[in-house]
Amino acid sequence: MEKLYFASDYQEGMCEEILERLRETNRVPVSGYGTDEYCEAAREKIRSACGLPDAEVFFISGGTQANKTVIAAALREYQGVISADTGHVNLHEAGAIEYTGHKVLAVPGDHGKLPAKALREYLETFYGDANHEHMVQPGMVYISQPTEYGTLYSKQELTELREICDQYELPLYADGARLAYALACEENDVTLCDLAHLTDVFYIGGTKCGAMIGEAIVIRNKALMPHFFTSIKQHGALLAKGRLLGISFGTLFTNGLYETLGTHALEMAAKLKQALRENHWKFFFETPTNQIFVVVENEVLKQLGESVVYSFWEKYDDTHTVIRFATSWATPQEDVDQLIGLLRTLSA
Amino acid sequence: MEKLYFASDYQEGMCEEILERLRETNRVPVSGYGTDEYCEAAREKIRSACGLPDAEVFFISGGTQANKTVIAAALREYQGVISADTGHVNLHEAGAIEYTGHKVLAVPGDHGKLPAKALREYLETFYGDANHEHMVQPGMVYISQPTEYGTLYSKQELTELREICDQYELPLYADGARLAYALACEENDVTLCDLAHLTDVFYIGGTKCGAMIGEAIVIRNKALMPHFFTSIKQHGALLAKGRLLGISFGTLFTNGLYETLGTHALEMAAKLKQALRENHWKFFFETPTNQIFVVVENEVLKQLGESVVYSFWEKYDDTHTVIRFATSWATPQEDVDQLIGLLRTLSA
Amino acid sequence: MEKLYFASDYQEGMCEEILERLRETNRVPVSGYGTDEYCEAAREKIRSACGLPDAEVFFISGGTQANKTVIAAALREYQGVISADTGHVNLHEAGAIEYTGHKVLAVPGDHGKLPAKALREYLETFYGDANHEHMVQPGMVYISQPTEYGTLYSKQELTELREICDQYELPLYADGARLAYALACEENDVTLCDLAHLTDVFYIGGTKCGAMIGEAIVIRNKALMPHFFTSIKQHGALLAKGRLLGISFGTLFTNGLYETLGTHALEMAAKLKQALRENHWKFFFETPTNQIFVVVENEVLKQLGESVVYSFWEKYDDTHTVIRFATSWATPQEDVDQLIGLLRTLSA
Amino acid sequence: MEKLYFASDYQEGMCEEILERLRETNRVPVSGYGTDEYCEAAREKIRSACGLPDAEVFFISGGTQANKTVIAAALREYQGVISADTGHVNLHEAGAIEYTGHKVLAVPGDHGKLPAKALREYLETFYGDANHEHMVQPGMVYISQPTEYGTLYSKQELTELREICDQYELPLYADGARLAYALACEENDVTLCDLAHLTDVFYIGGTKCGAMIGEAIVIRNKALMPHFFTSIKQHGALLAKGRLLGISFGTLFTNGLYETLGTHALEMAAKLKQALRENHWKFFFETPTNQIFVVVENEVLKQLGESVVYSFWEKYDDTHTVIRFATSWATPQEDVDQLIGLLRTLSA
Repeated sequence: MEKLYFASDYQEGMCEEILERLRETNRVPVSGYGTDEYCEAAREKIRSACGLPDAEVFFISGGTQANKTVIAAALREYQGVISADTGHVNLHEAGAIEYTGHKVLAVPGDHGKLPAKALREYLETFYGDANHEHMVQPGMVYISQPTEYGTLYSKQELTELREICDQYELPLYADGARLAYALACEENDVTLCDLAHLTDVFYIGGTKCGAMIGEAIVIRNKALMPHFFTSIKQHGALLAKGRLLGISFGTLFTNGLYETLGTHALEMAAKLKQALRENHWKFFFETPTNQIFVVVENEVLKQLGESVVYSFWEKYDDTHTVIRFATSWATPQEDVDQLIGLLRTLSA
Repeated sequence: MEKLYFASDYQEGMCEEILERLRETNRVPVSGYGTDEYCEAAREKIRSACGLPDAEVFFISGGTQANKTVIAAALREYQGVISADTGHVNLHEAGAIEYTGHKVLAVPGDHGKLPAKALREYLETFYGDANHEHMVQPGMVYISQPTEYGTLYSKQELTELREICDQYELPLYADGARLAYALACEENDVTLCDLAHLTDVFYIGGTKCGAMIGEAIVIRNKALMPHFFTSIKQHGALLAKGRLLGISFGTLFTNGLYETLGTHALEMAAKLKQALRENHWKFFFETPTNQIFVVVENEVLKQLGESVVYSFWEKYDDTHTVIRFATSWATPQEDVDQLIGLLRTLSA
Repeated sequence: MEKLYFASDYQEGMCEEILERLRETNRVPVSGYGTDEYCEAAREKIRSACGLPDAEVFFISGGTQANKTVIAAALREYQGVISADTGHVNLHEAGAIEYTGHKVLAVPGDHGKLPAKALREYLETFYGDANHEHMVQPGMVYISQPTEYGTLYSKQELTELREICDQYELPLYADGARLAYALACEENDVTLCDLAHLTDVFYIGGTKCGAMIGEAIVIRNKALMPHFFTSIKQHGALLAKGRLLGISFGTLFTNGLYETLGTHALEMAAKLKQALRENHWKFFFETPTNQIFVVVENEVLKQLGESVVYSFWEKYDDTHTVIRFATSWATPQEDVDQLIGLLRTLSA
Repeated sequence: MEKLYFASDYQEGMCEEILERLRETNRVPVSGYGTDEYCEAAREKIRSACGLPDAEVFFISGGTQANKTVIAAALREYQGVISADTGHVNLHEAGAIEYTGHKVLAVPGDHGKLPAKALREYLETFYGDANHEHMVQPGMVYISQPTEYGTLYSKQELTELREICDQYELPLYADGARLAYALACEENDVTLCDLAHLTDVFYIGGTKCGAMIGEAIVIRNKALMPHFFTSIKQHGALLAKGRLLGISFGTLFTNGLYETLGTHALEMAAKLKQALRENHWKFFFETPTNQIFVVVENEVLKQLGESVVYSFWEKYDDTHTVIRFATSWATPQEDVDQLIGLLRTLSA
């Protein structure tokens, strides 16, 4: 029997609409480095969807690449980037930010989020210290929506962060690697437009949301990163065949596909969460999006592992483990049904 | 009328075999970051094609990315990389190598090649200087095959470079962005196996040779770059969906496809060169591969530009310009025929 | 009335012996960049004092410079340096380590020290994580002796750290910015020889221990940092007139001067600690060396500040503050007596 | 017999006025990191001497340190620094600039100078290239006064460079490592005030002009490098005992000492040049300052080397060598006389 895959939201290829579009356009010769008409069309659709007709939009192959390129381009050498301690840039990028010369200034987070209160305290303490010129200067605030823990900032929370950023003249940057799963979430009150207007720069995730590769960086505050095209090239992040990214995002932003894909993942997640609840599985904590964290007895986990590919998260205690199930744009309904059936057996 | 595109070898998408294979495998869930079975299969095919059963093989999205990641991983901080002054790493990468902290040590090249004599003189002068500990230490030799000018190293030339590298304990690295167009060239006497054995590390170009994206880094000297996986991630160059690269290279290295694609490009180039000769166009210099450099009178160029997309190379004199035509795996026979027809008209 | 200065151990110039030696040698022409006879003599004295006849010794102008140059030279690009979270490299160097591209891997410390237990747990967790190749690889362990909090590692503690480093093949580096104040301490059981043999590389502090500037980097494990001379130059840390550092260290390591200077500081500190105790001042925590941390009521602090220059350390609570008094090689006996007299008044 | 030292202008210690001032102030406790009163007084004197009452002035230990810190602080990540190919930053700093992530954009120089014509051509070619966003962006222009070859920019030449910089919005930076020997030169028409007003930032050399260590960075364009204090610390270049630099520069800028020291060196150089001419030695090229380059037959050189320490510059041909004599603030009159006597013997 084939195993059921719930390990991540990047385990399948790309949505068929993109595949088909790649096929249709495959032999059309175009210019390189993202200067082609597919990229330009995709940029226009994204600007329009964001309500930012003047925004700059750049496509880049992956999330770490996007984060390091944006952050390094926005910072001056003496600056670091503030992040929740659980932020992707702090823990999961093999030191990519530091490799560009910048310290990640970790602030205690709350279930993946950077609380406005914690940010304010950090900045007040920093500037209250008479010796702060001896320390790395804060130069940007990094958040993710949804977070690495699947949680969401509310519009109120984002607005508070924005106000602090304005007060301290800090640009706000949002990592939207899984943005489709925020936008499609019922609990979410932050629209794409809101996010675009509340941040200085953010990226719309493609890799985890229906594309094979690609993230779309949207820059509202254009003074922040002059010559960003050159920076992308310098980071080795400029694809010769930028068409791949332009076609992917052009397709995702046609006929509401990005939303459709997100909605599917959340419907699958909702079914799975419901079944977990009904079978009395213990949530590590509840999340509104497509990542589901549960605490599993190690004996049960062994059985689960025979049929299901999940993601190890962390040790809980000597007899329990935290694991993650992820649904995505690609999760088959029948796989969810099978997993639900299995849950009944396991908890029996 | 549609224009004829001869501007570059990265203006179309991917060969249909890869597209089809992407379609077939699209919904198969696999693990991320290049640990999937498609990548593993592609690695095995490449190891076998290179005659290096123990080589490490990594896939990366583009050429500048490959160059900067390999060079930065191989060098210690006090070292630089020697390159012909015309080398891609010196001129065309927006300072990507320097951004990793390393100087490019430019040595005068000859039609894109690094002559063994020039390398030897550079090293003798360097180590002959009593103050050489005050200077950037040479830490690697970079070459490209074919070069940025479409020229080729002979096996004899490569062997001489290798001997110098051995003498000075320098690793030799070859950039094979257009390697298919070297391997398929009749004048070429350096096989894939030869290149793999004469270098410490090299990469097999995919982006310009039939894939949408991707380069395969082949490491014979595994002690050179320990933890290269971590380096790739640190450079932001690790694709979550490594399958794209694995599927692409697995396909290119099945049934001799890589050679077939290269051969097509060279056949198209041969026809075009023949026509240029017959119509008395002036070659900037002759090249054996898919890049063709000609000197064109500016008046003629204006007419040419109405029907053909070519690549500006450099100003020749006040009334002439050097341009490049490139053929590729994707160049249609009928486009070559049309361009040949046009050449007759223009030179008439 | 002149204020009493107890703010730091770098508030006066240099010990008179060095000043006199500078005067004597001032017009002797010598070669530059640390190749002169004063530097060579100082190296020999240091090698001898360390019991390491084959060690490499380099002089550098300051502590942050020494730390960043050593750490960056020892690490490969994919590595970071482990430090107690309170380590100088983590908190007090304006991101100098990250600027060289390396993450500081902070481990919870204990009063400035990196406990062997904490180090072992960090490494076991790291290598126990199946995904550790996705993370910054530990490449060095940084400690300071005495620590930033004036505490000392015992020989037993250092030996345990060494064993862990051996097990994980990690070099151990000690920052000895205030080493004279460790070596002269009665509670200390780690000799200069011990430190030199238990670490791969460490530095002997001059700036805070009697010299105007200068730290002596002693490298037992010479394979760790090849071409370190070139690295120093690349970091901008190579003084043209290296004689200044050679003369300073040559003097400090003649006739036991380094020990004499340390002993004076500790005698002054002992008197002051005794007086603080007698007058019932509250120690933030007790330290065996020249830095004294006390918790002072804010009202008392205001009075103290009228006559004494001290160092603010941190807020304790709404009505108390932690301050630091530091003695040094230069602290006048009469200043200590005056401060002691003042303490009686204040606590009255 | 003692040899005569003419190898460099950094072979003795410091001028006696600084030594005496260090002695006088040695036990005065002051605050660290250049915040002391000696530094502040020196800054005021320098501002006044430069006619820039609002300039920022920072002290740093050496020339490479100054260059890398200024250049890295002024550039954004996608920028490089333009320099004559013979510039110190391009050839003599062990890759210190590249280590900060920036390419040195070398332009053909003329006897050490960057000709306005060459600069203009470089910029016109760069911006004339349609692909210039694919390349390192010029972000600063570096010159040295006097140059590494002892030559001088005239006020006219500097003004032309300034105009080009203004046109292209590029800051102009001058390395004044040997500035005293320019200012004291009869042929020089660029005053300290001129240099301060024609550049955005420059540094006044101390190490080679009478101090033991130290360069004074003078920033007219304060918007160029915000938080430069933090940058200095991040580069490891902030001395705890900044007093050393403050006292040195305060002394050099009191009673015209800096000019006096420069004048002495040039008088010694003039005598030596005169004797060389009289004895028919061949100048490599003539220089107006304290560095003298002569072409010597190898046989004569052997004899010379028995009595004189000179500086090897480069091989001239199989039987001749270019060497450098340098005079300085410290060159004894009697040494010059002895060398002149020797020249007569050798050329006899």
